[in-house]
Amino acid sequence: MSDGLPLKFEEGKLLILDQRLLPGEERFIEINTKEDIWDAIKNLKVRGAPAIGIAAAYGLWAALKDLKTRDYKEFSLKFRETKEYLETSRPTAVNLFWALDRMEKKLKEYEDIKDTGISWEDSAKKIKEELLREAEKIRIEDEEACYAMGRYGLELLHPGMGILTHCNAGALATAKYGTCLAPIYLGKEKGYGFKVFADETRPLLQGSRLTAWELKKAGVDVTLICDNMASAVMKNGWIDAVVTGCDRMAANGDGANKIGTSALAILAKEYNIPFYMYAPLSTIDLDTPSGEQIKIELRDGEEIYKMWYEKDMAPEGTKTYNPSFDVTDHKYISAVITEKGIVRPPYMEGLKKLFE
Amino acid sequence: MSDGLPLKFEEGKLLILDQRLLPGEERFIEINTKEDIWDAIKNLKVRGAPAIGIAAAYGLWAALKDLKTRDYKEFSLKFRETKEYLETSRPTAVNLFWALDRMEKKLKEYEDIKDTGISWEDSAKKIKEELLREAEKIRIEDEEACYAMGRYGLELLHPGMGILTHCNAGALATAKYGTCLAPIYLGKEKGYGFKVFADETRPLLQGSRLTAWELKKAGVDVTLICDNMASAVMKNGWIDAVVTGCDRMAANGDGANKIGTSALAILAKEYNIPFYMYAPLSTIDLDTPSGEQIKIELRDGEEIYKMWYEKDMAPEGTKTYNPSFDVTDHKYISAVITEKGIVRPPYMEGLKKLFE
Repeated sequence: MSDGLPLKFEEGKLLILDQRLLPGEERFIEINTKEDIWDAIKNLKVRGAPAIGIAAAYGLWAALKDLKTRDYKEFSLKFRETKEYLETSRPTAVNLFWALDRMEKKLKEYEDIKDTGISWEDSAKKIKEELLREAEKIRIEDEEACYAMGRYGLELLHPGMGILTHCNAGALATAKYGTCLAPIYLGKEKGYGFKVFADETRPLLQGSRLTAWELKKAGVDVTLICDNMASAVMKNGWIDAVVTGCDRMAANGDGANKIGTSALAILAKEYNIPFYMYAPLSTIDLDTPSGEQIKIELRDGEEIYKMWYEKDMAPEGTKTYNPSFDVTDHKYISAVITEKGIVRPPYMEGLKKLFE
Repeated sequence: MSDGLPLKFEEGKLLILDQRLLPGEERFIEINTKEDIWDAIKNLKVRGAPAIGIAAAYGLWAALKDLKTRDYKEFSLKFRETKEYLETSRPTAVNLFWALDRMEKKLKEYEDIKDTGISWEDSAKKIKEELLREAEKIRIEDEEACYAMGRYGLELLHPGMGILTHCNAGALATAKYGTCLAPIYLGKEKGYGFKVFADETRPLLQGSRLTAWELKKAGVDVTLICDNMASAVMKNGWIDAVVTGCDRMAANGDGANKIGTSALAILAKEYNIPFYMYAPLSTIDLDTPSGEQIKIELRDGEEIYKMWYEKDMAPEGTKTYNPSFDVTDHKYISAVITEKGIVRPPYMEGLKKLFE
């Protein structure tokens, strides 16, 4: 792990980058207790589905690493308590549950450790090492998945292209590389000279606070625009491809992602620009037939006119509508990029094949 | 003139609403000198093309109303000085020049007043009264134009409709009613029960600061959204018409308006929603063949990530692109609403006819 990533591990200590302070301040928080990691996830110090899973796995280990117990049973009880507590930090984050379950499965492999004749002290040490290794495995697998998405995605891009992105599906949201930013980082290594345009992404401004920050830090040529300027930059002929992440994809290829994504896809179609959605297999849900079944989270309307600002930007009590996501109809998606390859329409067949 | 309007006239005093303080504070500034009105226009206390023209005309009068002179020649000289000074307040505002020229033309009608045998003192009083009357005429004509646009626009709408608007082409930008908000106010009087959605309109937030403020004040049902949520509200089936103002329209019907307008027009077409652009005759320029010849003003990029905020929202030195306007291709415009009637495609013929 290196700079510009959501967490790092130094001298046996887990450190999480407090993304709420970006872009102004780059501060890492040390994670030593279950409360530390719960707070980091709950309060969005770490965000992005894969990064949350990785942080939770490491965090679970960190919260237990100095725990003194008498036997496996006691350790296992404490483990379960900690896990259940961490699950309350962000109950809608699928990756959180998935990563914690994987850690529990790893623990259960040692259920019969008392019969091996080794002292519990040594066994506990071994179990903790294995838990850390499992967290590392989760991180490395995500890094590999991102790298694979980057490699596949790069096949669709050419040197010198203008690329528009939305929100942050970058290194900060994953183990490394990001999902839709992965081909940009790999292209950078090859000297492709992409010109990236980043939507600021209202109301939480992940585009200006995070994407502009991480791309600028990596030396990528990035230009920040307001969300409503996407049509203008496309019309100017500056955009050759649109790339976004995906929060959840239905079996027919409809993809839910950060609010505003569907508008970009429609504009891209109108301007004859390909629109690529990056969907790790963990986000593809074949049990959901179409986007119509995806429930959209509504957030507090004050985010629109109070958050970040010195003064209120609309009259007190103004009615608002503040959905987190919107669903992009599969008909606007030129290709879906996964860690197992590129899927082209018809998506119903192509997505199903990924899981065979 | 009444509340919720950009200026008012009380006990012989010109008062301009400081729109920069909205929506938090409703403060009127008294205009007594040429510096007062210059500052109000320069520093965007008053904005919106028609409102700037009206404010400049009244302001010119206010700056001269207590002026002591010996004869017409001296008055005329001072008038010219003041006019030229005010013209520097916002050199790109066509309505500013137009209104000040009209005031000068009125003054020139009295060039021969010295031969009428009336004392200069009485003549000067008369001239000042006539200048005030001319300013009032400019205001009333604009109010009538807005009312006419409202009446025509209302023909295209039905009770209970959901209407999406962008930026502020409302009462605050004109003498009264606004351009594209005029049918909403007239519909309100008739109990039409429109549900209005207002884009916040980044980066200057005229939608949340001004449109939400004036519609809420008038008791209109208004919901504030971020610009990137337009596609979602359209997909939800909540929008039956999109209405926007127009800053400049070319002979073929291409219309420049606040950045983001072209995206709304494209989305509206995709969702089969009519898109109506409100263009007073003063904005239609038959000498400009198409939108390609309209020059787009670029503004300071720091508006995107510094303005309004407590802290910088992107890293210092981030590259930006911050155009004020974009051009909506006429093919996405369902109808153009003017004070002389509704124009439907083909626009080349229809717009020309307005001036015959």
